[in-house]
Order: sequence, then C-alpha cells, then structure tokens
Amino acid sequence: MTDNALDQQALDAYWRAANYLSAGQIYLLDNPLLREPLRREHIKPRLLGHWGTTPGLNFLYTHLNRVIRARDLNTMVVIGPGHGGPAMLANTWLEGSYTAANPAVQRDEAGMRALFRQFSFPGGVPSHVAPEVPGSIHEGGELGYSLAHAYGAAFDNPDLVVACVVGDGEAETGPLATSWHANKFLDPVHDGVVLPILHLNGYKIANPAVLARIPEEELDALLRGYGYAPRYVTGSGTDTAQTHRDMAAALDGALDEIAAIQQRARTGGDRTRPRWPVIVLRSPKGWTGPSEVDGVPVTDTWRAHQVPLSGVRDNPEHLALLEEWLRSYRPEELFDDNGAPAAELLDQVPDGDRRMGANPHANGGLLLRPLHLPDFRDYAAEVGKHGGTTSEPTRVLGHFLRDVVLDNADARNFRLFGPDETASNRLDAVYEATGKQWQAGVLPVDEHLVHDGRVVEVLSEHLCQGWLEGYLLTGRHGLFSCYEAFIHIVDSMFNQHAKWLKTSKALPWRRPVASLNYLLTSHVWRQDHNGFSHQDPGFIDHVMNKKAEVIRVYLPPDTNTLLSVADHCLRSRDYVNVVVAGKNESPDWLPMDEAVLHATRGAGIWDWAGNEDGGDPDVVLACAGDAPTLEVMAATSILREQLPELKVRVVNVVDLMRLQPHTEHPHGMTDPEFDATFTTDKPVIFAYHGYPWLIHRLTYRRTNHHNIHVRGYKEEGTTTTPFDMLVLNDLDRFRLVIDVLDRVPHLGARTALIRQRMADLRARHHQWTREHGEDLPEVLDWVWPY
Amino acid sequence: MTDNALDQQALDAYWRAANYLSAGQIYLLDNPLLREPLRREHIKPRLLGHWGTTPGLNFLYTHLNRVIRARDLNTMVVIGPGHGGPAMLANTWLEGSYTAANPAVQRDEAGMRALFRQFSFPGGVPSHVAPEVPGSIHEGGELGYSLAHAYGAAFDNPDLVVACVVGDGEAETGPLATSWHANKFLDPVHDGVVLPILHLNGYKIANPAVLARIPEEELDALLRGYGYAPRYVTGSGTDTAQTHRDMAAALDGALDEIAAIQQRARTGGDRTRPRWPVIVLRSPKGWTGPSEVDGVPVTDTWRAHQVPLSGVRDNPEHLALLEEWLRSYRPEELFDDNGAPAAELLDQVPDGDRRMGANPHANGGLLLRPLHLPDFRDYAAEVGKHGGTTSEPTRVLGHFLRDVVLDNADARNFRLFGPDETASNRLDAVYEATGKQWQAGVLPVDEHLVHDGRVVEVLSEHLCQGWLEGYLLTGRHGLFSCYEAFIHIVDSMFNQHAKWLKTSKALPWRRPVASLNYLLTSHVWRQDHNGFSHQDPGFIDHVMNKKAEVIRVYLPPDTNTLLSVADHCLRSRDYVNVVVAGKNESPDWLPMDEAVLHATRGAGIWDWAGNEDGGDPDVVLACAGDAPTLEVMAATSILREQLPELKVRVVNVVDLMRLQPHTEHPHGMTDPEFDATFTTDKPVIFAYHGYPWLIHRLTYRRTNHHNIHVRGYKEEGTTTTPFDMLVLNDLDRFRLVIDVLDRVPHLGARTALIRQRMADLRARHHQWTREHGEDLPEVLDWVWPY
Repeated sequence: MTDNALDQQALDAYWRAANYLSAGQIYLLDNPLLREPLRREHIKPRLLGHWGTTPGLNFLYTHLNRVIRARDLNTMVVIGPGHGGPAMLANTWLEGSYTAANPAVQRDEAGMRALFRQFSFPGGVPSHVAPEVPGSIHEGGELGYSLAHAYGAAFDNPDLVVACVVGDGEAETGPLATSWHANKFLDPVHDGVVLPILHLNGYKIANPAVLARIPEEELDALLRGYGYAPRYVTGSGTDTAQTHRDMAAALDGALDEIAAIQQRARTGGDRTRPRWPVIVLRSPKGWTGPSEVDGVPVTDTWRAHQVPLSGVRDNPEHLALLEEWLRSYRPEELFDDNGAPAAELLDQVPDGDRRMGANPHANGGLLLRPLHLPDFRDYAAEVGKHGGTTSEPTRVLGHFLRDVVLDNADARNFRLFGPDETASNRLDAVYEATGKQWQAGVLPVDEHLVHDGRVVEVLSEHLCQGWLEGYLLTGRHGLFSCYEAFIHIVDSMFNQHAKWLKTSKALPWRRPVASLNYLLTSHVWRQDHNGFSHQDPGFIDHVMNKKAEVIRVYLPPDTNTLLSVADHCLRSRDYVNVVVAGKNESPDWLPMDEAVLHATRGAGIWDWAGNEDGGDPDVVLACAGDAPTLEVMAATSILREQLPELKVRVVNVVDLMRLQPHTEHPHGMTDPEFDATFTTDKPVIFAYHGYPWLIHRLTYRRTNHHNIHVRGYKEEGTTTTPFDMLVLNDLDRFRLVIDVLDRVPHLGARTALIRQRMADLRARHHQWTREHGEDLPEVLDWVWPY
Repeated sequence: MTDNALDQQALDAYWRAANYLSAGQIYLLDNPLLREPLRREHIKPRLLGHWGTTPGLNFLYTHLNRVIRARDLNTMVVIGPGHGGPAMLANTWLEGSYTAANPAVQRDEAGMRALFRQFSFPGGVPSHVAPEVPGSIHEGGELGYSLAHAYGAAFDNPDLVVACVVGDGEAETGPLATSWHANKFLDPVHDGVVLPILHLNGYKIANPAVLARIPEEELDALLRGYGYAPRYVTGSGTDTAQTHRDMAAALDGALDEIAAIQQRARTGGDRTRPRWPVIVLRSPKGWTGPSEVDGVPVTDTWRAHQVPLSGVRDNPEHLALLEEWLRSYRPEELFDDNGAPAAELLDQVPDGDRRMGANPHANGGLLLRPLHLPDFRDYAAEVGKHGGTTSEPTRVLGHFLRDVVLDNADARNFRLFGPDETASNRLDAVYEATGKQWQAGVLPVDEHLVHDGRVVEVLSEHLCQGWLEGYLLTGRHGLFSCYEAFIHIVDSMFNQHAKWLKTSKALPWRRPVASLNYLLTSHVWRQDHNGFSHQDPGFIDHVMNKKAEVIRVYLPPDTNTLLSVADHCLRSRDYVNVVVAGKNESPDWLPMDEAVLHATRGAGIWDWAGNEDGGDPDVVLACAGDAPTLEVMAATSILREQLPELKVRVVNVVDLMRLQPHTEHPHGMTDPEFDATFTTDKPVIFAYHGYPWLIHRLTYRRTNHHNIHVRGYKEEGTTTTPFDMLVLNDLDRFRLVIDVLDRVPHLGARTALIRQRMADLRARHHQWTREHGEDLPEVLDWVWPY
C-alpha cells in the first residue's frame, strides 16, 4: 500500500499521454506532436485499428503502474481485448520497454512518428497485442483465452501478479466463461495470483455485450458464484478525478486482499479456498473520444468499436474533429521539445523489469531452464526378439514422466494437463510422484487430490490448452494428454499458438520457449468401446496446415520409440509436437538402441522384418502408427509364410514430416532418400493411422507416388471390437495381404487360394463378433513369429 | 398440475424397471429376466457401458413421464451425459417408442434379450445416446453442447418444453459454461422453454466435478448470476420415497413457474426477462448399484463411472454380486410372463407422441416444411459484359436473405446465427425484415434489438453452432455466418454433427433434415486489416475429412453465383454446406443465366475468358474462390495482351467436390470430364482460395496431376494491404503470369521482358505500400478489359 496521497493529476496526465499516442497510431502518418495544424497529408490513407477498447486499457495500465511502483509488485498484464494493440504499444513506448526491444523506435519525436506510422501499416506492426508487443504473451485476436493464459502464467510463480483484462465481448465465449473456474485449481501458497479485471465497455462490434446488460446484482451473483469477491468501478465520462480515486481504491483494496490471502495461506496455514478479488470496470466504449460524429452518438456506443472518425482525409469536418480530439489531450504538456515523455510521466514508470513491457515472465524464454531429464533408456521395455514381448506404451511413459516430475520437483517448472484422462490414458504412475492440483472440496474417498500438484485436470480441453500455453510462454515445460478425437476442440487455439510461435521466432528479442507437447492417446483404433463420436484422427491434418518450422508429428510404433520421442519433445523448443501413441498392450518391436536410432532417423526400413535380401523387394509394406504397424507386421508374417518367394520390404514411419520433400519441411527426405526407401517402381501398400489422403498430400511429388496405395481411417466406425474397427476401414492384415496380391504382378496360381483364405477369415471374424461380442481369437494369433 | 396424490410406489417401480433394463444391457447376453440363476455364459465377454450416470437419468425420465401425463406436456429431452445410453434405451423400450422405430426389438422377453445383447455389441447399438436412440437430437459423446442444443430446439416452438440434463462433468466445458446465458435470448412469447436439470452426481472419470464441490451457496449464486431460479433435490441413497416426493415437488414447482412466466409474457404483456427455473439434482453416482466391490466403495465414487463389477465372468463373487444387484430391482414384479412391462408401468407411459422417445421434434424431418424461397434471380447483379460491373456479394445475398425471412415469417422456421458479425459480413439488409433477438437490457442508442427476431447474435461460435444444430435437428432451417478463420472454433462440433448426419441417414425412421449452412466470409484474403490471427482458410480441409455423402464445399466467384449456390443450399437436406464468399466490392463475372449454369455444373471452362479457340490450349489457368478468380482473370488479361499467341484456357471451380474422382464423391468428375477440362498434358496453374495441398489431395489420381501447380495461402500474412496479402503468398496476378512463363515451353524471347516487368511491378508495389500504406493503384488497374 502506498503512503502517498493519490496524485490524480499525474495519473491523468499519463492516461492522456497513452490515449494521445493510441489515437495517433490509428490516424497519423506525420505531424505526430501537432506542431502544425493537422492537414490531410498527415493522415493515413487506410484507417485501421480499434479505438473502442483502447482508452479503458490505457486507464488500467496507468493505474497498474501506480501500484507496481507503490508496492514493488512483480506484475505482468494479459489483455483479453486483443484488438487494443494501440494501448499496449503506447504504454510500452511511454515506459521505454518498447524502445528497448525495438531500437528503431526511439522515445523522441522521430520515434513517435515511427510508432504512429508503423501501426497497422504494411511492413509495420499488427493492430493486436501480437508477439511484436513487448510484455505480451497473449494476442487476443480470436478472443476467449485471456483468463486461461493468465492462470497458466500464474502457476508456480508465487510472487507474480497477473493482471488480466477480460473484455465483455470475450466474456461471452465458452472458453472464457469456464476460465473463471480456474480459481478452483490455483494454489495460494505455491502459485501466484490472477487479478481479473472485467472491462464492461458495453458493446461488441455491433451489439451490446451480455454481461453489460444484466442487472448489477445478477453480475455480482455470477462472479460470486464463480468464487470471486467483486469490486466495482464506474468510469465516468465527466468526473475523471473521481474515477481515478475509485480505481485506485479498488486496486489497493484488491491487492491488500490478495496479500492478506497469501499471508493467511503461506504463513497462517489457512487452506480454505480463497475468494480472490475481481475488479469490474464499467466505462464508456471509446472513452474520451469524439462523443458525436455526423449527428449520431459515437462514444459509449458500438460505433466507437473501430475508427470513430472514418472520413478524415476527405471530410474537413472530420479532420477538424480529429484535431480537436487529439488536442484535447494537451500533447504540449505531455511531451518535451524532443518529443520524449515529460518527466512527470516518466516518474510514474516502474523501474527496469518491473515495467510490464519488460517483465521477463512475458518473454518466457529469458527464464527458461532446461528440464532435468532422467535417461529414458532406463525405462526401456526389454526386447529380446523383435516383437517378442508386449507392453503398454503410455503406461511405461508414465514411469518416465513420474521421474521427470521428481527430478524437477524443486524447479517447479513442469506440469501435465489433461481433461480428466491422465489415469484413463494410463499415465497414472505420475501419482507416485505428485497429485492433482485442486482447491475445491475434498471427501475421504478422493484419491490424489492435493493443494499443490504437477497434474492439473479439468473437463475442458480449452482450459488445459490455455493453461499450458500460458505456462510455456512464461518459460516453463509441459505436456497435454488428451483423447485423440477431442483434441479438435482446441483446433483454433492451436492455430493461434502456432501463429504466435511463427511470429515470435522472427523477433530477435523473443527467446525460445519450450515446445507445446500433445500426447494423443485413446486413439481412433481403440475407441471401439466408445464408438463413432470418439473416433477422429484428423488433428494431424489440421496441424499440417501450419508452418513447417513450428510443426512436428510423431507416430511411435511401440514403447521404446515412444520413450525416445518423448525425451526429444521435452528437450525441443518453439515447436508444437504432436505425439500419437497407444495405451493398450502391444508388441515391443524395437530394443531400445534400435528404437533410438529409428526415432532419430524418423523413418526407415525394418530389414529384420522383411525378406528382401539385398535391396530389391517386390513390394513395400509401409506403416505409420501403432495399430497399422501391427497389421503390417501380421500381413508380412502371412505373406512370408504363404508366399516365401515374395520379397517384402517393411518401412516404418515415426516422424510424418519425413515423407515431405526436404524443400517443404526441414525433416523431409531428399528424393534420393525417399526413392531408396520406397523404391521408384514397386507397389507400396501404406497402412496409416489417420485419414489416408494425408499420405498422398505428403508424397504426391515423389517418383513412386502413383504406386502408393494408402489404407487408413475412412470414417467408418461404431461400437464394436478392436479388430472389427480395422476391418470396417480396410486396414486389417487380411485386407493388406489382398492389397499386395492385387498389386504385385505374376504371383502365380497360389494367390487365388490365399486371397480366398483372407476373405474367409474376414467373414468368419465378422460372423464371430456378431455372435460372441469379441474378436475371433484365431485372427489375433497371426502375430509376428520372427 | 396434477390433482392426484403422488404414487411413489408406482414411480419407484418404473425407476427400478429402467435401472434393471440398464444394468441388463451392460451385462447380460442371455437370461434377461433372471428366470434361472445367473451363470457365466449369460454374461457378455466385454463389459462396456457407463453405469454411473444412468440411474439418475432413469430417475429423471420417470419423473418427466409423470408430469407429461399430468399436464399433457409436449416435452423432449436432451441428455448431456451422453454416455448414459442405457437409460434412454431402457426408457424408450419401456414406453414402446423404441420398438416402434426398431420392430426387431419387441416389448417381450425375446425383445428384452435383443435389447440387452445389442448394447455396445458388434452389429448392435452404441453406448451413447446416439442417433439410433429415438427421442434424441444429441449424442453427448463429446460433452458440452446439450444446453445449446436444447435452446436451439426451443426456439420457435412455443408449446415445447425441452428438459435438458446437464452433467456436472460436462458443466466444466467452455461451451456449456456459456450456454447458460442462452436465457438472454429466448423469447418467452414465441419460443418454448428449456428446463435445465443440473445433475450433480459428483464425479467424472477419475475426479470430482467442480460444481459438485463448491458450497451450495456458491452454486446458487452462480445459477442466479446466470439468470435462473434454482430448485434443489438431493437424491438419497436410503430414503428414496422422500427423494421421489422432492423431485415431484421440484418439477411441479418449476413447471408451474414456467406456465406462470409464459402466461405473464403471452397474455399479460410482461416483457421483463424471466428468471426461468433450473433444477439441481444431487444424487450418488451409480445410485442403486453395488455400494462396495472388492473392499472399496463404488457407488457415490468415480469408480461407478463405467462398469462397477468388472470381473463378472471370471470372479464368482462378482457374479453373485451382480445377481444380487439385478434381483434387488425385483424384475419379477416389473415384467409379465412374456417379459413385457407390467401394466402398472405402462400406466405411467405418456400417450403416443407425448412419449419422449416418440416426440416428433426429436425426429425433426417429420416436421420439416420446405422454405418459401423467393426467386434468387430477382436479386441478380446486372452484368452486361463479363466482369464489367462490380458488387458486394454478401451484401446482395443479404437482400435475398431479407426476403427469405419475410416469406417465411409466418412459418417461423428460418434463423440466422452469428457471432456479432451479421452487419460486419454485410448481410444487414436482413434488418429491414427482422431484428436481433435479445431479452437483456436495452438502451435508447441500440439498433435492431427486438424480443423476437430471426437473427441471433452472441460472441460465441459454440453457441451459434449449437443453437443452429438444435434448430435444424428439430425440423427448421438456418444459416451460420462467420469469419472464416474463427469457424475453426467449432471444428469439433462440426465433426459431431457430420457424424450424426452420416449415422442418421442410415436409419430408415429418421427423416431428412435441412442442411447446416455455413457462410464463411471476411475471409483470409480480406483480413489484411486484422492481420495474421484472423487468417485461416483451413476449415475446408477439416470438413473434407468427413464422409463425402454429407459434405459440400462451394466457392462462388461472384455475386450471381453466390445467389445460385445459396438457393441450392437452402433447399438441400442432410448436408453440411460450406460456402466461402467475399463481402468486398468485386467484379460480377457472370450474368445470372450463366451463373446458374456454372453453379449447377460446379466447375467449367470460361471460354469467354480464354482465347484457346477450338480446344487446344497451351496452358490452363484454374481458380477457385473470389480473390483467386480475380487474380487469374487479371493474369489472363496480361497474358492475352502481352502474349496474344499464347492459348489460355480459364477454368473456374465453384463446387470443390467436382475435383475429386466420381468414385470418391457423388459430385466428382469422371476422368474423361476432368481430362476434357484440365487437359491431359498441358500445364495447369491453379489459384486456390485455401491451403494449396488440398487441390493436390483432390486431384492426385488424375491423368494430368503432375502438371498441376497450385498457388494458395501458405500461412504468410500480417496487417498489410489486400494486394500485399496476395503477393506474400505468391497468389498475385504477376506471380501467376511468371508461373505460366515458367511452365509453358517455347514462348520465345519476349518472355524475359514480361517476366522482368512482372517482377518490377511486384517490387514497386512492395515499395509503394511501405511508403504509402495502401495498394499501388496501378497494379489494381490490371482488371479484366474484355
């Protein structure tokens, strides 16, 4: 708490400066300090930007600066209304953090001109709080994820206060609506705190916002129902002095309460779930802008959403209004002769890294420490003969992850997120090392619920994803394990994160962060029990549309390969790694040394599986994914027994990117490599985990592409047996054998018999399952005998 | 309201019968009535299903039946905990609606055996409330959408009561968390009502549920904050008689309140937003099942989630426990000698269509009436010369939609849904015919807000999608207009709807419903002002993974083609139609008669645009999408001027499915058609709206595929000018010209000059935009002069 009396004038000057700089960015090409009357040629030809939310954000930034200084707070800010880019740009420029990251934009008149000109301008900076803005981990272009990101940032940062501005438009989204419940997870002892500031500026693009149009008692009940203690501030269009006093009081009150809660929990041992404060700021949309334009009200209506004066270049009245508006901030008082902020403003700026634009948590790579990783080889499934043993890949991975948790317990920089599926996905060994973080009620029957745990589970993929993103972007490590089909719920969040990574990588001052790791299990081939609604392998396709430099997809065929891939992913930086792996008992194809080599190569010939003897196969059986690998091995086994003269090559693909040309993806094979692996002229039967056309998309430029015949999931599924799932989609071993017979010429008379036998087995299996409700044991006996 | 005293014994018998039938489905292959002691061979080999939620659902169904009969209610039910398939199957079998839809499963002993056997069994029915279940419009496999579906069903059905069971797991999802706010939209006069029943059974798969572990006063505040008036029932594990009384009282109270609200609004003219009732049922998970197994508690813990006794076949103790459990329902009292439900049970079943399994709203095709569609030709852009005029496609479409609204005003069966973008997407002509439905607060400054309107806008794509799905599946029509990039937010909901349609189409008793129509605009090529986060054309790729028989994708190149496509989509049934169209002023390429023909053909040669003269082009310039079409036309224009001897063919694709082989999609071209259009040996430069590899995926089997060179969006975007977006992604006219020069052999010496000119223009444009912030006018002059 500050002892100084509130200097409302100083606060107001700072706010005016930020507002001036924001409006300047939207409108001005030149004459940044209005040293001469405003003329047409000073105005940008295309007026782009969102004024509506901006003055409210500036107001909050101004007040946050005050409390940061007064309390020496470690504070970062997440701006939900991401369209308010001008606000963050204005404030970081004022405080100097923008110039520190972007020396081309100095804090002087030329710098101000550059700041204005670059905004929403070709070759300049976007209009959102994009990666280009220092101090941001959250763009907000899509809306809905601010609060989840803020909580992710607060986990394991006990000294951090994450101020999170939630827009009232954004508040209507599903992800935001459930993000309020994150307070049932945040540990007041070991985590920091999120201070949500719900900004009711009343309107979206063309509509009022729901939360701005319900009675205050209803809003109050809602926020209390979410478990918060609300404080209200109403921003006045007229008495701004009072509004400054109210805001300062609300912030001081909230921060006092936060300090008291933390003290009770941390030193008093009080483990009741706190009712953290939330601030509700009701302020006019476009606050301080032109109240009326062309005879219709603008400020405090949806018309203030973007550019309040749109005809400035061609309409002298608009031009005059703009000049009047800009001069209303009295820039001559705010900037010195050089165009630098006046001393009075600089006095209000926090020091060094305390500036929100310079807080290292918002450039997480600065704080990132590598994980201590145990040697994954120590967890290897013992494999004497290829395929001679079986194990449950994700269960073994769970042991490795348990020790990752243990080995990084002190660093507190690794977490597992999941929608209530950690145990279902057989990673439950982690509970030997930690528990599930949970601050809501506990009953004696509960298991593994703790106040402070490395596992965070909530039945919202959106929250899991948002938390993990916030956690990673502030310099930590993590894994999101999810049912494969339902990861589509976060398709769009993934898009935004991949775009963030792509952009960040091009900014020299942003340091690399840990990759976002997905472990997709309970996958399409083992959702026979849950049925059609749980069967969808298309996330891989979705991911593939993003930039090659940020995307990696792995389909480890067995336990040891999964361990090697997981180790690699946890060491990697700035990627999105998608790992699809099975949880069911399945053959261990590779001893650990071979698995490491295979995972490193990403794809290769399994010469121990084929019988080509010297490199001239008649057919290539390729596979990617655990279920397809088993089917290819079984098909190969049948072929080698029934047609020993047929020369079969088996190729397994772990790293899907290997299939692309090396010109398209850094992992891609060169054409000679691809040709050496898949031949230039032999039939290739490719059994693939997902939708078959993806393999064609990846390989269409290859010499032998016209010979590649892909089997995969073709949206045929229901509640049935595991093997019937394969049959329904023509991915079963018998179908693969028939595919070989169909495509390899001159196989002779015996093929008719084999073909008949395969068809019979499929038919018998079908009949058997309909009668007995389980797979015909005989078909599953066709396992790898070599 | 009922005058009869509550017959708790009868209710309990019905509930026991439903519970018996539910457990029977999970466990029994045979001996359905336990006429002999339970033996190993009576048990299914794989025990699949979710017991936990089921008895609570049965309890609610039993009580809903009571009030339906007592009040002659028109009620359908939406079951959020979709895993509770056994409950809906049990109840619809009891009431006879299951047998009506599935005559193979009669209401007798053989039918009961079939009912049990088919459940989660190969060749049988899924374990969820899937399309196979009569009375359902909601599967619930993915969780989160029940309440949105329920509100969608209630719109424009003033007599309908949609009882919606919300699971406490599902309640943690984002979509569900915001769905509560749907009460700010539902009109008490013209819409029906949703009665949410929040079912707190305490646990998810392996965790407690958040809403079950917050204090009741917090939950109460939350629900009141959402705008509801809660009523609470606690299901006792011991005093079920009291629980029946409590539930009956809560339902009667809620329905009385609903009737009172509707009367106040409908006859009393009271337009204050009602606080609709919500019922909270707290009951033990796995209620009435085995309380303890192997020494650990099961009922009222997460262990009851799936199969409480898992070792029945091999563990005699489990077998005995199962028999004891099943016999505890006293089946001998519940079913007659033939295995039919006892008369006492049948007395509780509502009549005919009042049965929830027979309610026609849940098989919406039964109620579907075709839209009255004005002649779309009347809205045509007048086109004298191809490309001689310009218009804004979606703005013109808005006029058509306005009249669709008007012409169907009495039928009240058409709605537009959107996330606050109807005006931004330039469909605002619809406001001449209707307004935006809204029951929250209104201020004088607001526009187009009405209690009862055909447009429903909320900033939640999830809600828009869920509402529309619920609206369509109950037999109405609609359109979802959305920014292209953000439609990915509902990727997973789309998946589930497409799966629902695929399955429904195979069920003879489900009648066709209107297609789900997406209008994606503000698309990737015109998000230069919002920047990278708003640029993503990948929804098309996502959609293409679903079954060909339910998917249609249209990329109309101009206004008239859009009108024709829209008319077609609004007439279609059982599809998902994705229409991507521009909102910006752009050339009208086709007069209406040609547009109709072109849209009907789906793809074709624009012979008026090319100069091949007799069918032997040197190069094919193909395009799909409005921006690519303009670039191809401009490139053609350049080529025809600069290289008049070059024979250019222009092909435009409206219906993307035309590119696929006809064996893959019913709209696909045959190979001869494709060859005749794209040639078998000439270079094809294909300018495509989205990610380029999709075109390869669709065409890789075609003769000329190796000659197809695709340009499209390659994830290069930022805040810039519209033309710079094209340049960044190599889709601009100049790049296309260079592509032609690169690929057509023997073009002679002049090409070097042309190539240089093209490169210069690109460079000049780049320079100009960085200086002036807008497109170089000169580059845009290269429009179609023919």
